[in-house]
Amino acid sequence: MIDPMDVVLVGATGAVGQEMLRVLEQRAFPVRRLRVVASPKSAGGAVTFRGEALTLVAPSPQVFAGAAVALFSAGSSIAREWGPVAAAAGCLVVDNSSAFRMDERYPLVVPEVNGHRIPARGGGIVANPNCSTIQMLMALKPLHDRWGLEHVVVSTYQAISGKGARAVDEFERQQRAVLAGETPPVSILPGVLAGNLLADWTHEPSGFSEEELKIVAESKKILELAGLRISPTCVRVPVRNAHSQSVWARFARPVSRDEAITTLRAAPGVVVDDRIGPGQHPQPREVSGSDDVAVGRVRRDLDDPQALSLWVVGDNLRKGAALNAVQIAERAFGVTPSSRA
Amino acid sequence: MIDPMDVVLVGATGAVGQEMLRVLEQRAFPVRRLRVVASPKSAGGAVTFRGEALTLVAPSPQVFAGAAVALFSAGSSIAREWGPVAAAAGCLVVDNSSAFRMDERYPLVVPEVNGHRIPARGGGIVANPNCSTIQMLMALKPLHDRWGLEHVVVSTYQAISGKGARAVDEFERQQRAVLAGETPPVSILPGVLAGNLLADWTHEPSGFSEEELKIVAESKKILELAGLRISPTCVRVPVRNAHSQSVWARFARPVSRDEAITTLRAAPGVVVDDRIGPGQHPQPREVSGSDDVAVGRVRRDLDDPQALSLWVVGDNLRKGAALNAVQIAERAFGVTPSSRA
Repeated sequence: MIDPMDVVLVGATGAVGQEMLRVLEQRAFPVRRLRVVASPKSAGGAVTFRGEALTLVAPSPQVFAGAAVALFSAGSSIAREWGPVAAAAGCLVVDNSSAFRMDERYPLVVPEVNGHRIPARGGGIVANPNCSTIQMLMALKPLHDRWGLEHVVVSTYQAISGKGARAVDEFERQQRAVLAGETPPVSILPGVLAGNLLADWTHEPSGFSEEELKIVAESKKILELAGLRISPTCVRVPVRNAHSQSVWARFARPVSRDEAITTLRAAPGVVVDDRIGPGQHPQPREVSGSDDVAVGRVRRDLDDPQALSLWVVGDNLRKGAALNAVQIAERAFGVTPSSRA
Repeated sequence: MIDPMDVVLVGATGAVGQEMLRVLEQRAFPVRRLRVVASPKSAGGAVTFRGEALTLVAPSPQVFAGAAVALFSAGSSIAREWGPVAAAAGCLVVDNSSAFRMDERYPLVVPEVNGHRIPARGGGIVANPNCSTIQMLMALKPLHDRWGLEHVVVSTYQAISGKGARAVDEFERQQRAVLAGETPPVSILPGVLAGNLLADWTHEPSGFSEEELKIVAESKKILELAGLRISPTCVRVPVRNAHSQSVWARFARPVSRDEAITTLRAAPGVVVDDRIGPGQHPQPREVSGSDDVAVGRVRRDLDDPQALSLWVVGDNLRKGAALNAVQIAERAFGVTPSSRA
């Protein structure tokens, strides 16, 4: 039995922050006292945890004093400003922004993939990877261990929740407008997503988007495979929650469909749906709300005995963000989740 | 000036048949008399062409007598039964089903790609490729001519209109139900597509779907490249019309982003949108209704100097079906489309 500890949640009002509250509750994380931090604008408001209203406070050095864990889900600039303060106060900082992900001083962790990089109990900063990276590696790491991953071509079908609660609201207003034959509102999103597809991230001069380059750089760091080749295309689809990915992966050795399925079935945090038929595969509508990453449509390449095609679906707010962060804290303090209600 | 000719349209009431009527009209195809054929169940009803109501008749040998062109959009069994009858009557048969596509006796044609395979004026059967194959090859053929195509990894984002008018209706009912918090109806589709993703085609024991295997076999036949490697994943997305594709292509020689864009700009039937930025790329909502296939997000692979990533969007009912069929007839009879109203 682990002694309950003080926990700070920075960014408690956002889509991921709200999911973190649910995950801490559902997994019965041993919280003695939870302090909830939001922007000065939101301070004074409240969020609910275990049926209790907690008052939101603005960030300050005092808020981290005595806390064991600080979960950050508040963007890169807040993380850069307050993450080191929390770590200096002795917290284990788990940050969901991109602030520390590619910084060599900090581990970037998916517990099932490279959990050994989580620092022993005590202070320090751990970066939580991008949602797309997490679910892709949950599927590829077990296969990499078996056959040696060399090249990945990934096309994503990303849900709107990854862009935040205001984008979800705008998307729903767009849907209603399209169904009513009216002009859809466009202010948060860079275009109409209802009945459409968007690459709505910042793009580099090479033409690749920030999101695509995150998948590449983060995967290499997490797998410690500098020579891994990744060819990514990220697309936002009119789906509310849960990201899907079409993954083609080439390995150093010949693979088999049956052994790939057996290997994935044995992987923690992965569920395999290997049914074959129309509509018989993992779907975002069904995977939304699940902790496990679902893998289906496992196919040996038609021509290349060393390649597989996979369909990977994961809840981007849970395993792609909030759950992965809480799992890092669980692992650091030896906490076994006691409930998955 | 081409003398007007008699044309038969078999399957005039379906989504593609209706689009064929619009395309014949918009391109001012020199139709003297149009005979419209439907199932015995629909016979006696009417469709409109050039503002005139035409009575639907059931198929019979007499309906093809004296006609120069027979456009078929009525499924494989009708095509197998009546295509040879129409060809024997002297018609150029252009069939949109999969009945003749992989039959070595018949050419499978995208006019801009292998128009030289269209038989000279006179009878014969020409197969119209699958919608996904057509738009993918419209983008890849010009690049193949320049650098030699070797391997394609394609993930599709296919619109619901490809599954027919009844599927579109069900999809819209599903959308309204989801927005109202009600249970979405499922009878035509194998599941809920509103806010979801489906692989709604028949699947082979290998796990590949019929649609995926069509792309592979048809592309090899059209390009006359038996050794071409294609790794396909086909996905239906909640988009009403126009298919999108994430295409990764590897060539025999080193490629460049700028030369790829220049090459695609010069290709007939292709428009290039090479803007870089959030939402700055071809989108199905915008491409729907267009004749041209739109290519954007052209990226040189991060690691492989011989590979490119592309985003390809085309109207699956127009270039993916009806327009391509009419273009085959135009080419066979030397018709220059006189209007693109």
